[in-house]
Amino acid sequence: MNEQATGLPLQGLTVIDLTRVLAGPMCTQMLADLGARVIKVEQPGTGDDARGIGPFVDGGSAYFLSVNRNKESIALDLKQPQDREVFERLLQGADVLVENFRPGTMDKLGYGWETLHARHPRLVMTSVSGFGQTGPYSGFPAYDMVVQAMSGMMSVTGHPDAGPCRVGVSIGDLGAGLYAVIGTQAALMRRSRTGQGERVDVSMLDCQVALLENPVARLGALGSVPGPIGTRHPSMAPFDVFAAQDGWFVIAVGSDALFRKLCGLLQLPELAEDARFAGNAQRCEHQAELKAALQARLRDSPRAHWLGLLTDNGIPAGEYNSVADIVEHPQVRERGMLAQVQTPSGQTLRVAGNPLQASLGQPLVRRQPPALDADRERILRELSVAPPSPIHERA
Amino acid sequence: MNEQATGLPLQGLTVIDLTRVLAGPMCTQMLADLGARVIKVEQPGTGDDARGIGPFVDGGSAYFLSVNRNKESIALDLKQPQDREVFERLLQGADVLVENFRPGTMDKLGYGWETLHARHPRLVMTSVSGFGQTGPYSGFPAYDMVVQAMSGMMSVTGHPDAGPCRVGVSIGDLGAGLYAVIGTQAALMRRSRTGQGERVDVSMLDCQVALLENPVARLGALGSVPGPIGTRHPSMAPFDVFAAQDGWFVIAVGSDALFRKLCGLLQLPELAEDARFAGNAQRCEHQAELKAALQARLRDSPRAHWLGLLTDNGIPAGEYNSVADIVEHPQVRERGMLAQVQTPSGQTLRVAGNPLQASLGQPLVRRQPPALDADRERILRELSVAPPSPIHERA
Repeated sequence: MNEQATGLPLQGLTVIDLTRVLAGPMCTQMLADLGARVIKVEQPGTGDDARGIGPFVDGGSAYFLSVNRNKESIALDLKQPQDREVFERLLQGADVLVENFRPGTMDKLGYGWETLHARHPRLVMTSVSGFGQTGPYSGFPAYDMVVQAMSGMMSVTGHPDAGPCRVGVSIGDLGAGLYAVIGTQAALMRRSRTGQGERVDVSMLDCQVALLENPVARLGALGSVPGPIGTRHPSMAPFDVFAAQDGWFVIAVGSDALFRKLCGLLQLPELAEDARFAGNAQRCEHQAELKAALQARLRDSPRAHWLGLLTDNGIPAGEYNSVADIVEHPQVRERGMLAQVQTPSGQTLRVAGNPLQASLGQPLVRRQPPALDADRERILRELSVAPPSPIHERA
Repeated sequence: MNEQATGLPLQGLTVIDLTRVLAGPMCTQMLADLGARVIKVEQPGTGDDARGIGPFVDGGSAYFLSVNRNKESIALDLKQPQDREVFERLLQGADVLVENFRPGTMDKLGYGWETLHARHPRLVMTSVSGFGQTGPYSGFPAYDMVVQAMSGMMSVTGHPDAGPCRVGVSIGDLGAGLYAVIGTQAALMRRSRTGQGERVDVSMLDCQVALLENPVARLGALGSVPGPIGTRHPSMAPFDVFAAQDGWFVIAVGSDALFRKLCGLLQLPELAEDARFAGNAQRCEHQAELKAALQARLRDSPRAHWLGLLTDNGIPAGEYNSVADIVEHPQVRERGMLAQVQTPSGQTLRVAGNPLQASLGQPLVRRQPPALDADRERILRELSVAPPSPIHERA
């Protein structure tokens, strides 16, 4: 299919974006990457809080630049009548409103779901919050760190007896951002049948519990509480990080047949015959002895030797990379998984791309991350072209 | 809106599901939860490999039960002519085909994208693989562990100088599963405009790089390679885990105003005046001293005291929970974020629910995770009702 001829997947949709920092902007950046028009409505003066979070490149926040490409910006004070009028005109032409204020804030502004749904019955309203719009914790403030700790995500990450450990990325925010995209698209798909918008209520804590699917199921099945287990897999062995002569790498063996093949390749036939390692259940039970036996052989040769031998023979394995390694990795470069964005003054920054890049059929960055209020004039002009009609007719 | 009257968001869509283990089944479970009919096509005899992965409940794999609710199962050997005919009849009525074989396998089976697209121009084909359908690593085998290590995700997780550390859930699989849902829905939305299906090519490695958005941006901005930093946040302070008298908890302060408020509440006015902690950049630079100063005060009182004081005053904070704590947590229970599924012989298992539950408007588990081939008779009967017409007319 010629994607250029058929347009981006979400072409024709307009998203009004009140989100700040990470979970919400991650959601709206995906919608923007996929072709929606995203108009970021920011607080005058400071804008999205992320604009003030470092590190900075040429005065621009790398934190902000990484999750705000393909968006427009207008600064509006939603407590001022004139700005409220602009905002309400924007909503008339919108398909989706995304916000990640604390629950109750939109109601206080006069833009609660019931009000908006009565005025704009086709509007989808996606709300991302720490704990959701309902329940006893709903009104509590939250950040990634809070939901990582509260959800149990930290309790299964790290090495045994080494204390709490955070996932090295803000998975509390990022997970919620991805579920918010799924919920928004699902609501738009239902709307195409019903003609009605709906409220999508995404809780960061709920999303972490969903990602804990295996620990929750293990707790239910075994009755024992899953804890941190370092680098190994909870229910498969050998599935772990090993040290070669010159660096770390991973072996991931998921079946008995692959295990026997591994033992042959490493010239350790006695392991394949050992009753302690006969099946995956036995290997998990004796994973420490198994790891030691494999490790004793693996430290004799360099990583490249083992990786070549294993992957050539169909054993899942891979190198342990740093972030500097991965941005130069031939597979990542070939897949176009990095993008260049620009600060408002023109300096470039390399950021992560979009895993759906291959489906877009055109360059990922159509619009640079906006300076605060950068699109005010054009947006206001569009709104007044033929007031009060929608700024954008649906395809 | 009355969701019961309007049906589930993806009602009317049929998904043929060739996926195994985790990334693919996570994707198709979300599509099924949202209302698509998902027909899981499994290898006769063994079925989805996950059926053999423990722990087990009453002979059923908890691993499998956790990501296969709301699906039907039929066992087909795609190398046998009679079963291929059934599979091809299934495709005639399908909107989406999801598979997570290694690239090239579908081609060898005679079901490569070009072939399928020519026969079924409206079919969306979502392929999840370790490294994607293109690039020098495309044909390599991969599992979660491999892409966690290769992507750099492990390199930013853990404590400094403590060696590699895996994220405690299979984020390599789960991340890809979520992006696959987004790509599938986006393709369906484009199809509603163009009438054409498309190939959605999801690489687990690409998805990890996307989730590394902050480390990639930091590398570009600072030129230094991000490493593991334990429990603290890379660019905000104080944003960390602290030990109270009786347990761990989290404080997440994202602004100067909140920091001054925190110092007041903890009766540490000298910290608010200290030039080392004047702004977020300074607090990050001196985060070790700041943590020590806060920690010295916090260990004097129990966690409940501090959590009450901080959250009552709008400081984001939260308890550090185990998986056992979170499944009993009042917020999680109130939000309906847990579900009960049944083994084929009727024993129940508590599993994670769906963060979009609130949008469904009906109970999450409409159908129990299927026994292998459980739906054969009904599916075959449906296919022969009026061959060769589609098994299911679109709404």
